[in-house]
Amino acid sequence: MYKHLWSNGPKEGLEYPYYTFTDHFGKAIPSFLPRPAMRDYLEGRLVKKSKSDIKRFIKWNTAVRYVRYNKKSDDFTVTTENLKTGQTFDTNFTHVIVAVGIFNTPDKPYFEGIETFPGRIIHSHDFRDATQFKGQRVLVVGAKYSAEDIALQCLKFGATSIVTSYRSSPMNFKWPVGIEERPLVKKIQGKVVHFLDGSSTEVDSIILSTGYKYKFPFLEDNLRLSSSRTLYPAGLYKGSLWLQEGNKKLFYMGVQDQFFSFTMFDAQGLWICRYITDTLPNKLTNCEEMKKEAQKWVQRCRGLKGINEQIDFQADFIKDLSYGTGYSPDAPKANKFFHKWDSDKKANIVSYRDQQFTSLYSGTETAPCTKPWFQNFDDSISQFIKR
Amino acid sequence: MYKHLWSNGPKEGLEYPYYTFTDHFGKAIPSFLPRPAMRDYLEGRLVKKSKSDIKRFIKWNTAVRYVRYNKKSDDFTVTTENLKTGQTFDTNFTHVIVAVGIFNTPDKPYFEGIETFPGRIIHSHDFRDATQFKGQRVLVVGAKYSAEDIALQCLKFGATSIVTSYRSSPMNFKWPVGIEERPLVKKIQGKVVHFLDGSSTEVDSIILSTGYKYKFPFLEDNLRLSSSRTLYPAGLYKGSLWLQEGNKKLFYMGVQDQFFSFTMFDAQGLWICRYITDTLPNKLTNCEEMKKEAQKWVQRCRGLKGINEQIDFQADFIKDLSYGTGYSPDAPKANKFFHKWDSDKKANIVSYRDQQFTSLYSGTETAPCTKPWFQNFDDSISQFIKR
Repeated sequence: MYKHLWSNGPKEGLEYPYYTFTDHFGKAIPSFLPRPAMRDYLEGRLVKKSKSDIKRFIKWNTAVRYVRYNKKSDDFTVTTENLKTGQTFDTNFTHVIVAVGIFNTPDKPYFEGIETFPGRIIHSHDFRDATQFKGQRVLVVGAKYSAEDIALQCLKFGATSIVTSYRSSPMNFKWPVGIEERPLVKKIQGKVVHFLDGSSTEVDSIILSTGYKYKFPFLEDNLRLSSSRTLYPAGLYKGSLWLQEGNKKLFYMGVQDQFFSFTMFDAQGLWICRYITDTLPNKLTNCEEMKKEAQKWVQRCRGLKGINEQIDFQADFIKDLSYGTGYSPDAPKANKFFHKWDSDKKANIVSYRDQQFTSLYSGTETAPCTKPWFQNFDDSISQFIKR
Repeated sequence: MYKHLWSNGPKEGLEYPYYTFTDHFGKAIPSFLPRPAMRDYLEGRLVKKSKSDIKRFIKWNTAVRYVRYNKKSDDFTVTTENLKTGQTFDTNFTHVIVAVGIFNTPDKPYFEGIETFPGRIIHSHDFRDATQFKGQRVLVVGAKYSAEDIALQCLKFGATSIVTSYRSSPMNFKWPVGIEERPLVKKIQGKVVHFLDGSSTEVDSIILSTGYKYKFPFLEDNLRLSSSRTLYPAGLYKGSLWLQEGNKKLFYMGVQDQFFSFTMFDAQGLWICRYITDTLPNKLTNCEEMKKEAQKWVQRCRGLKGINEQIDFQADFIKDLSYGTGYSPDAPKANKFFHKWDSDKKANIVSYRDQQFTSLYSGTETAPCTKPWFQNFDDSISQFIKR
């Protein structure tokens, strides 16, 4: 995450049904939040909604070094390290939920000559502040959300020019002057970048917005999910329960590509709890049936065409997770916000964050922005909620 | 390591007794080598000296995930991952040698306000090319070898000004115009850095040359060395054998602060082999005696005054390791080169790399540099060996 990062989806699309933005902020606010305001909302939900700080259940400063499944005792041995004292411990658990996220290990491509490029090269993971690229010609490699946002950030904060480079297909937004898209990098000679279409350009810095690897180095191999980024990784019943090993006691949280994010995590977390506590109606127990069921979703996912089908697929995933858990049946209805968001972006990639929505739960309408996002250089929470 | 890095000690101080620089390059060369030439020498020793590539004994693309000592079977279970296939393995070994080095995990200080500094902040670990700081005002935090060299590099490649900041004591070299030393940073406000002496200055980038942590996250706690940087970490007999646990079958290579480096590693590696294969004369076996012996060295180390005593201490350490192993008794005599090196640096920190030495083993005298180091912007091996 970086300074001046604002959410790239409307808050109405990911709003918690039982803790709305109006519950938290006490008034209408714009639909796209700067990072500190979003954090404030998340913290508020943890503390206010639960009436007491649930962070006390977290064992801080503790790293998981290794996890094994023990066939004999049908449980897991989790090796942890207390990072303050250096002490290591083996502790047995009946269930394990892997919730480390999928955006921690950069996936970096290699291009001929990149090792002698004289400028700065970073992965988007290490991008902290677009002002550092002021006055520079920047190459952004990638064509997903990071590339899109970092290109805009660099332009907003004064980069001279930005060239983005795509592998499979361009983002094709109506880019403002200063941003252009080119095919994949072929090679780099000094400061000159050559592209597959035969064109070339000189740049001062390279930002690899090329995504992340699914990486779980602390799991033994048969417990380990291996996947490229997708809305439905294979091998997980309900997108959550690991079927290969661990006797249906190992779960993965949030390893899906995300539109809904917060509500998807909510629905998934609740489903996992219900599954573990055996409080689900008509719970499947047969592993083969689970595999078939999971495979159906994976198949459907592979056949999706375009972003609107992807959005609706994730809405259906949340619906499927919510069945019998008691989670809000309204959450999947936020798909309409993402449809609008997508068409807003296609209409104008610079102004989509200035658009308005109406909350599914509180009925609150978006407050207008004090300034358009592209002209707003103050991302403090005080500025954001002041009106 | 970074582009344009040249060795910061004379090659005669770390030359292999049985594979001299003249053996490798076939002629006299200057005493301070650019990075590619040093790598070439190391590779040559692995391949040429051993008559066949010993790299074939290395299991590549394999990460050690965890190491445990088994009291019952008196051996170690080493959990590894094949990074290509993702497969994990448990393998038992009678002995384990930890040789991952001590310069991999940055030790980063916190200063009030650093989180809102608008410029680039890196640790020296991520420093790649001084040209990236051309035209900038740079703060280098630290007062050891990295800080010293990175300050010089930045000046050499066009930084406008460099301020270094020390915690305990300044480096006190006769710095060229453009580099100055100040006490520790007190706080940072925007681009302005305030120091403990009440002075302040504006900078564009911050380079934390603040060293590394001893970090062995793959070892269970009772196998794990914990130390700050020193010439003799506590708990290791002959600076190598771990005494706390593992029944004298766990070794650490190269966890000492280094002057001699290559010959110290050589002497240490040979001692460890002799110890494991039980081919040492008068080998100590009593753990208490070993602890006493180790403690004597640690005590002596703590009492060292000044760099010349430190250099001689490491010479004695190599002598001690070499006793009965058959390693060259000449290696410790390279201490004289480090004494000269230290006085060269004190005389002129910019020109110490242009000075000349004579090999202990081949008698070869340093070839003069084609250009003084500070004016030499070509660090290629072809330029270096061409004369």
